[in-house]
Amino acid sequence: MISSSLRARRVPDRLGAPLNEPLFERLALIGIGLIGSSLARVARSKGLARTIVAADASGEVRAKTAELAIADKVAETAAAAVAGADLVILCAPVGAMGTIAQEIGPYLAPGAILSDVGSVKASIISAVAPHLPAGVHFVPAHPVAGTEYSGPEAGFATLFLNRWCILTPPDGADPKAVERLSAFWRAAGANVEIMQPAHHDLVLAITSHVPHLIAYNIVGTAADLEEVTRSEVIKFSAGGFRDFTRIAASDPIMWRDIFLNNKEAVLEMLGRFTEDLTALQRMIRRGDGQGLSDLFTRTRAIRRGIIEQGQETAAPDFGRRAGER
Amino acid sequence: MISSSLRARRVPDRLGAPLNEPLFERLALIGIGLIGSSLARVARSKGLARTIVAADASGEVRAKTAELAIADKVAETAAAAVAGADLVILCAPVGAMGTIAQEIGPYLAPGAILSDVGSVKASIISAVAPHLPAGVHFVPAHPVAGTEYSGPEAGFATLFLNRWCILTPPDGADPKAVERLSAFWRAAGANVEIMQPAHHDLVLAITSHVPHLIAYNIVGTAADLEEVTRSEVIKFSAGGFRDFTRIAASDPIMWRDIFLNNKEAVLEMLGRFTEDLTALQRMIRRGDGQGLSDLFTRTRAIRRGIIEQGQETAAPDFGRRAGER
Repeated sequence: MISSSLRARRVPDRLGAPLNEPLFERLALIGIGLIGSSLARVARSKGLARTIVAADASGEVRAKTAELAIADKVAETAAAAVAGADLVILCAPVGAMGTIAQEIGPYLAPGAILSDVGSVKASIISAVAPHLPAGVHFVPAHPVAGTEYSGPEAGFATLFLNRWCILTPPDGADPKAVERLSAFWRAAGANVEIMQPAHHDLVLAITSHVPHLIAYNIVGTAADLEEVTRSEVIKFSAGGFRDFTRIAASDPIMWRDIFLNNKEAVLEMLGRFTEDLTALQRMIRRGDGQGLSDLFTRTRAIRRGIIEQGQETAAPDFGRRAGER
Repeated sequence: MISSSLRARRVPDRLGAPLNEPLFERLALIGIGLIGSSLARVARSKGLARTIVAADASGEVRAKTAELAIADKVAETAAAAVAGADLVILCAPVGAMGTIAQEIGPYLAPGAILSDVGSVKASIISAVAPHLPAGVHFVPAHPVAGTEYSGPEAGFATLFLNRWCILTPPDGADPKAVERLSAFWRAAGANVEIMQPAHHDLVLAITSHVPHLIAYNIVGTAADLEEVTRSEVIKFSAGGFRDFTRIAASDPIMWRDIFLNNKEAVLEMLGRFTEDLTALQRMIRRGDGQGLSDLFTRTRAIRRGIIEQGQETAAPDFGRRAGER
């Protein structure tokens, strides 16, 4: 049952023309992986900031960023990058946000907006907020977008196109700062949603964190079997298994940090999953065909909704073999 | 660690020219869904049989098959379809195979090969073999290929291209019959592997059946939550959840039958999965970051192997948004 507010709608498939005037003078991106480098690319192609400054803790990543020429400047340190910036976005793993905030806090310009792209919100807020000087607007954000690839080469300008970006401004946040950041994300192609941090963490636990956990888990289970060889798992993966390997190839440090920092919501949602799986296991053991086909019929509606909302392709098999038809 | 016998190899991306001489005089396909209709299409485009006869229990499907004109004849009954056929392939849900075998047994031509495409092998052999007259060669098969769509319109000629087809001939099967069926599948684009039925059922439990089960399960869990709305699940599904909805949109009756007929192997593999998931849950509860990142690093190798073997695309995000880059 898809609610009427979720009727299929036209979704843009192109970023559109650059803005006439940049939204920010100086955008500092701290952390140049898949998300940071995609932000640099879309900020440039859409003209979202007059100057784009990139920083990364890794010298190798800084060198690659300079080589790709996706930012106007590559700073040696995060502190140097944020000086004079009116928008700073932390694009590092969740566990690194507090340390970065501590490092850059003294260098943030009065009136600047500080944001992030972390997949967990409550723990980032606790880790970051104490390090911020008065007069800096902290507006946490999470673009729900990504691929299984990591690093500055993996980014692309349309990563956020028609994806949702969730903002979790603290109580009393300046509405103007929230609106400026919303405008930035909308110009990057995203839809913006405002949410409480705790609710964000619960929603993402079921739509992202637990799916990753069970994908990592089944790939681990398959790898450890003695009765079935690695070669057999690979050959016959088209039976369904290979779909799980995509998200189980995601960045290990990023995902370690997510689970450590959204422990409560993940364990809660995992508990529901396991409870339901136990019921399903019992249906199989008892031969309850009606129960099985009832569930298997019910689950089709959600995919239809996802396709209708432009969050998924309707092409068979994700369109993986579309070129051959 | 991918073994050297699994090094990346060139994989064909086209079916190639039709055969000079058909491999069979009359091919009877019983059940015209995704697999049956794909077999009809590839049999015609590659010239695998002089005449293709289709049958289906549903009058609606028979009418659609006639309208699509993918077979030379659409028979009213399975018995009529198999009369005079030198290759009969049952393409029905696993639970229907025994009944069909009973119905067609008396009409099978001496020397004919009877095969199937069921995703479970041991239970089909038990259900089908007793109904076959002497002189009919029973060579069970399972092409590990499919999409989340069902029905005669969903099929296409390249469905089996570079996928594996597993044959599970009983002890004492005629090697010539096994070879003729292998040649048929190779000409349809597939790679052929020979296996014991019980081993097939174990391998597919982990590479296909348990993945479908946990995909159905998490989609069900998400649908039933009270704290997170259906609309939120759909909007934020790009965080990973949507990958699971594809296989959870597969045919409910087909999958009900698979779980009821591969109970033992599915419950065994599900037990391993749950055991591993419990260990992972404990790592999260205890904050064992090293344990988490170790597992998350290990799982990347399997995906690399699957891509190198041509069973998966290397395009980010399954190539879903490739058109925009």
